[in-house]
Amino acid sequence: MPKGRTRKVAEIKQKLIDRIASGYYQSGDRFFSNRAIAARFHISYMTAHRLLKELEEEGYLGRKAQSGSFVKGEHHTYDAVGLYVSERAQIKTSYSAFLLHKLVLRLEAVDLPHKIVWTDRNTVLEDDLYPVMIDTGYLQMQLYRQNIFGFLLNQKAAPGLSSIWVDSVYIDNYSGGTAAAQIFKEYLSLDAYLVFAGPEDDERSRARVSGFLSEFPDAQVVSAGTWHFEEALRHVPTLFGTEVEKEKCAVFCCNDKLASAVIHYCSDSGIAPPFIMGFDNMPVSEELNFSTIAVPWDEMVERTVECCVSRLGGDGSSTRHIVLNTKPLLRGLSLRH
Amino acid sequence: MPKGRTRKVAEIKQKLIDRIASGYYQSGDRFFSNRAIAARFHISYMTAHRLLKELEEEGYLGRKAQSGSFVKGEHHTYDAVGLYVSERAQIKTSYSAFLLHKLVLRLEAVDLPHKIVWTDRNTVLEDDLYPVMIDTGYLQMQLYRQNIFGFLLNQKAAPGLSSIWVDSVYIDNYSGGTAAAQIFKEYLSLDAYLVFAGPEDDERSRARVSGFLSEFPDAQVVSAGTWHFEEALRHVPTLFGTEVEKEKCAVFCCNDKLASAVIHYCSDSGIAPPFIMGFDNMPVSEELNFSTIAVPWDEMVERTVECCVSRLGGDGSSTRHIVLNTKPLLRGLSLRH
Repeated sequence: MPKGRTRKVAEIKQKLIDRIASGYYQSGDRFFSNRAIAARFHISYMTAHRLLKELEEEGYLGRKAQSGSFVKGEHHTYDAVGLYVSERAQIKTSYSAFLLHKLVLRLEAVDLPHKIVWTDRNTVLEDDLYPVMIDTGYLQMQLYRQNIFGFLLNQKAAPGLSSIWVDSVYIDNYSGGTAAAQIFKEYLSLDAYLVFAGPEDDERSRARVSGFLSEFPDAQVVSAGTWHFEEALRHVPTLFGTEVEKEKCAVFCCNDKLASAVIHYCSDSGIAPPFIMGFDNMPVSEELNFSTIAVPWDEMVERTVECCVSRLGGDGSSTRHIVLNTKPLLRGLSLRH
Repeated sequence: MPKGRTRKVAEIKQKLIDRIASGYYQSGDRFFSNRAIAARFHISYMTAHRLLKELEEEGYLGRKAQSGSFVKGEHHTYDAVGLYVSERAQIKTSYSAFLLHKLVLRLEAVDLPHKIVWTDRNTVLEDDLYPVMIDTGYLQMQLYRQNIFGFLLNQKAAPGLSSIWVDSVYIDNYSGGTAAAQIFKEYLSLDAYLVFAGPEDDERSRARVSGFLSEFPDAQVVSAGTWHFEEALRHVPTLFGTEVEKEKCAVFCCNDKLASAVIHYCSDSGIAPPFIMGFDNMPVSEELNFSTIAVPWDEMVERTVECCVSRLGGDGSSTRHIVLNTKPLLRGLSLRH
């Protein structure tokens, strides 16, 4: 300790070290200036300067010409991308399987090493993998506690301090639901609009429904309570049990599997299907030729791979969240005009 | 018209042209394949192929090797960036003025021509300017009606079809409010938490308050009904009129001006200020040395300029929305421990 240092200055130094270690700074973030420290702690500019210099020498801070001190932090190195995937993706027809497949193809195309980790709530993040979370957003708290970066694919990060550790790409489900309703308004003039909703506790389904209702507040909502075909099929009669004429209504289905359940039900019962709008643009919407609110899967995967390349390359800059637009993909609609 | 063409085929061609012109496609988007058109309209693969070829020859579609037809659209050219700014930015201390100033400096630094357009609800977008909207999000509908791109700075796009025409960069206000509360939880142990809210009809204020209340559902909210210093000053007595002891409470203020009103009031009344957390990281928070939820203004401006450069350069790809993280900037906090 330099001679003449008072207990006060030693305490200030410890406070600065605590602050650096507190986790609010990320590697490369700007630290306080001499001037700011002097003013804040009521010490001289010289003392503040000496403290910053010591923190640099001790490896806590770095210095950039003309922009002052920055927080050094550890540079985390990764061996590979870790794909933390929910077990759900083992079901071949699930959208998680679809997304995982697309992502693996792209990672292979750019020669980025990767490893699939089948994940549940007890899974612990591996230290040498850059974590990409697919339907496993509950891992976000681990990122925060360990102060490491991670990537959320097709899911919005939980709000608050922990979101600072997450890059993400996702779609705006509410906006997609609104777009579905706007298409109905623009192209159809029908007596009734129905909504076939997904699981009631699923944020995505709720947002899609709310977006739709923002344009048609009186639309009837029937919950399938599921994202899956077989279960949805059992709830179609409830949908058609509402007091509307099937021929004069249009149905917004919260994903393409619900839409295909409605179409199969009509086909099996020998009734003409109403106008259907799905959500996702999964292969089944092409096969059955119905309109859907298309999620830009390829672009989503592209943005994910870009981020993996940059984080594996040592990018320690602040995270960001990218919201992609869904686009209505109209199929068979013009045939009706 | 090729010989032997039936009325049906001519109708199908018109439907395809209508679809291209409908505005759902953007320049560069993939169009239907031969196979898809054949299946959809119940025509032969050969006829579908011929139709696509005609649409290419007539300039509606282009063709990329191995990825089929894409929509050509017109390539919009711009002379400059148009900064459509609310009159509010003429008030020197407003955040709009602050943001505009930063943006103009960066546009000058990269030599991008730009023009400030003082805007109200009757303003019509100029054809040769790439529109950047600052507090003038109501222009979004004009983009949609004219099928032209635009940029929303520090504001979320309105949901639905019109959002497809907007690039944007903004922060998650709800998450920022949550982070403020989490900091209080982590660093302070006080009897009461108060919220000093902005205008009740302002989406940003509402989101910040909701985020805070998600962690402290019982916190008392007092509305200043404004974002401005003088008006806020008049509401501070209401804030302190609540049944809490000033020394044992902390106040989350929905922007830095509200925070500075609280501090000035305390200073004028000779009372020790409670712990204050502001929002924005405007210069006043540095001057008065209070903690704040910092908006990454420089990064926000950087992302805006990047997008301007790319759109002025002819980029016609799909728009995207970038959500930046706010970060708590703790000032004077360690002095209290």
